[in-house]
Amino acid sequence: MGSNQPDRRVFLKRGAALAGGLTLGAAEPVIREATASGQSVEEQSQEVQEAPDYSSDELIAYGERSPHVTSVREPVNGRPSPDDFGLVFHIGTPLGDQVGPITPSSLFYFGTTRGSIVPDIDPAEHRLMIHGMVDRELIFTMDELKRFPSVTRLHFIECAGNRSNSRHSRIVESHGMTSCAEWTGVLLRTLLEEAGVQDGGTWIVAEGVEEVKGASSLPMAKAMDDILVAYAMNGEPLRPQQGHPLRIVVPGFEGILSVKWLRRIKVVDRFYMTYNDYGHLRQDSDQAALLNQVGPKSVITYPSAGQQLPGNGFYEVRGLAWSGGGVVSRVEVSTDGGESWMDADFRGTPQRMAHTAFSFNWTWDGTEKVLMSRCTDELGQVQPTRAQLEGGLDNSIQPWRIAGDGSVHNAI
Amino acid sequence: MGSNQPDRRVFLKRGAALAGGLTLGAAEPVIREATASGQSVEEQSQEVQEAPDYSSDELIAYGERSPHVTSVREPVNGRPSPDDFGLVFHIGTPLGDQVGPITPSSLFYFGTTRGSIVPDIDPAEHRLMIHGMVDRELIFTMDELKRFPSVTRLHFIECAGNRSNSRHSRIVESHGMTSCAEWTGVLLRTLLEEAGVQDGGTWIVAEGVEEVKGASSLPMAKAMDDILVAYAMNGEPLRPQQGHPLRIVVPGFEGILSVKWLRRIKVVDRFYMTYNDYGHLRQDSDQAALLNQVGPKSVITYPSAGQQLPGNGFYEVRGLAWSGGGVVSRVEVSTDGGESWMDADFRGTPQRMAHTAFSFNWTWDGTEKVLMSRCTDELGQVQPTRAQLEGGLDNSIQPWRIAGDGSVHNAI
Repeated sequence: MGSNQPDRRVFLKRGAALAGGLTLGAAEPVIREATASGQSVEEQSQEVQEAPDYSSDELIAYGERSPHVTSVREPVNGRPSPDDFGLVFHIGTPLGDQVGPITPSSLFYFGTTRGSIVPDIDPAEHRLMIHGMVDRELIFTMDELKRFPSVTRLHFIECAGNRSNSRHSRIVESHGMTSCAEWTGVLLRTLLEEAGVQDGGTWIVAEGVEEVKGASSLPMAKAMDDILVAYAMNGEPLRPQQGHPLRIVVPGFEGILSVKWLRRIKVVDRFYMTYNDYGHLRQDSDQAALLNQVGPKSVITYPSAGQQLPGNGFYEVRGLAWSGGGVVSRVEVSTDGGESWMDADFRGTPQRMAHTAFSFNWTWDGTEKVLMSRCTDELGQVQPTRAQLEGGLDNSIQPWRIAGDGSVHNAI
Repeated sequence: MGSNQPDRRVFLKRGAALAGGLTLGAAEPVIREATASGQSVEEQSQEVQEAPDYSSDELIAYGERSPHVTSVREPVNGRPSPDDFGLVFHIGTPLGDQVGPITPSSLFYFGTTRGSIVPDIDPAEHRLMIHGMVDRELIFTMDELKRFPSVTRLHFIECAGNRSNSRHSRIVESHGMTSCAEWTGVLLRTLLEEAGVQDGGTWIVAEGVEEVKGASSLPMAKAMDDILVAYAMNGEPLRPQQGHPLRIVVPGFEGILSVKWLRRIKVVDRFYMTYNDYGHLRQDSDQAALLNQVGPKSVITYPSAGQQLPGNGFYEVRGLAWSGGGVVSRVEVSTDGGESWMDADFRGTPQRMAHTAFSFNWTWDGTEKVLMSRCTDELGQVQPTRAQLEGGLDNSIQPWRIAGDGSVHNAI
């Protein structure tokens, strides 16, 4: 890749010199040594805040994050809005604090058809039924599902309402409804093959245990390809807000199709309009399915709207890229509002339908700049500008404006 | 790979038939429908257990796991024992519940030189000093560290005391002191190059803020290779028990060297004996360094000691493999006590010095069996039997005995 990024070593030196703070060779060491009485840094900082009791049975059994770490999710305006459909709200991930592709389970975004209503399901009592146009109706306990051959895959889930507009002043509002986890479960194909799909079974309807019976219709081709019946995320059972004990993950399709609290999959012979399909009021069922795929998308998470740069100098610009079209093949960054583009570096190997972390070495000269990122996927699809956007899901390029005082703003 | 595993499809049919429970074609659906009054599964199960209030500000901001999920860490006997050295204890990961390579941050094992004493550090006040035989002494705030080019890498950390013996009746006791996370931070090399290592600077001493000043000596070659100064794990800031706000991660070396709550790195000209080096009382410093590398190792996590198989039939045998020698290149499984071996499948692409999840399709005939796994790494190193073990870190093959009643036992 023909990256125009300067050499890292040179850059650091320049950045440090410009920033006037990164290299402190002559400065007096200010690290506080433990005192003669044995009082050390951690005890001194208790003056500010009481430390948790890490010798407690609770924190030995199950660790919590530091009380100094305060990143949280928050309600954001999704689409459709509460006024339009009577829905409650979506809860966005604080993407601006994100490092790496994996979203911590506690901070994974969620949006349900009834907002904050989350079923409390005892996995010992839960069952999954597969029925409809199958040779054998099957009912599985969770233990039975876990005996099947399983897969572990990194996949993002993004809400169709994850779109930016000029009112958004922070990244959680414009992009907080996408998250990525390492999912473990059984391929739906494995279960459908056990059941035996009959001729003419061209669609499935997946249903959860939400009060309103959240359900989604999905084409059989997708079901037999890569839909996952997932019971774990990030190495542990699904979190309640992410569908505990069972959900489907529909890689690359809009999030609402990844039905949570899954209890039933029915094989049918046509597209069924369900509660979750309010966004798909189209006459052609093929269209309804195809338009669910997320296009190539990316966003710079640092610096991003709502953040503050401490001064000019070197920065590692960081972001996430993803696509419903498969593997991210390229991410470019512009620091001049889209006039010129340079290749960013990937963190690790991009995976199919997964957040891919990228970074770009940049020295800010202290003048106003507009930063953008642009994703290309393995199909050759290129993330569009807002002007190029043709309706449907919004995967347009997000511009962030760095003001002369280091504040970062939505440049739409 | 010449896997001798039967075809998955055939296997499932056979397994289902043998198990008599996986395929329930003729059974009556038992999924409880929502009642006319709107009472649904989740409400019914509240009769058993009160559900958390997911509409609370707390759970919207930061999700917790289901109250039905109860997997926890627990104190395990490490080496050296409390009796020998006055140390407290190590806290083991419930590996038997693990899926995928990533350990949830809340369940990541930990062992400190003072057991459960965890410093409470305000990241805004924390500093890292790099000094000793360098051209420029440097002191960094956390914000300054985060401006450097960073990397995100999956690495395991394993305690040297993670060893199995005949007294261990559960996998948490024999193998619970290894965990794996996606770490993000700055390569130590990047910081050392900023400081300028002087001629003769052949070792570093890394020191944390523990009361006893947990410190470790590491050879410069390793420091300039892949040691990470990490500020994040699994997409969020380090957890307190894993070194918040800063630690080093020393890929592939025994865990105690990955100094937590890092505040100082001193470049020196020789191996320094530190508190953490009580296990390295050797005359030759090169030996002290080289013997810290974890050999190729693996363990079957399901079925493993302390678990119970519900009956004969099909099972996906699952486990983890790792090596300090780099990438895991092969995992074999034996179901007959080591007489014959068959290749297991990897979950995803094995990464360097990271837990690699593997699986193996197996139909249990209900008779007593001894299951083993064997790891080979990219250097060609093969995991030894206990008889072949030559002292040092214990990476020997773990045999699990499946009794006729489905109970699983340590077969040492």
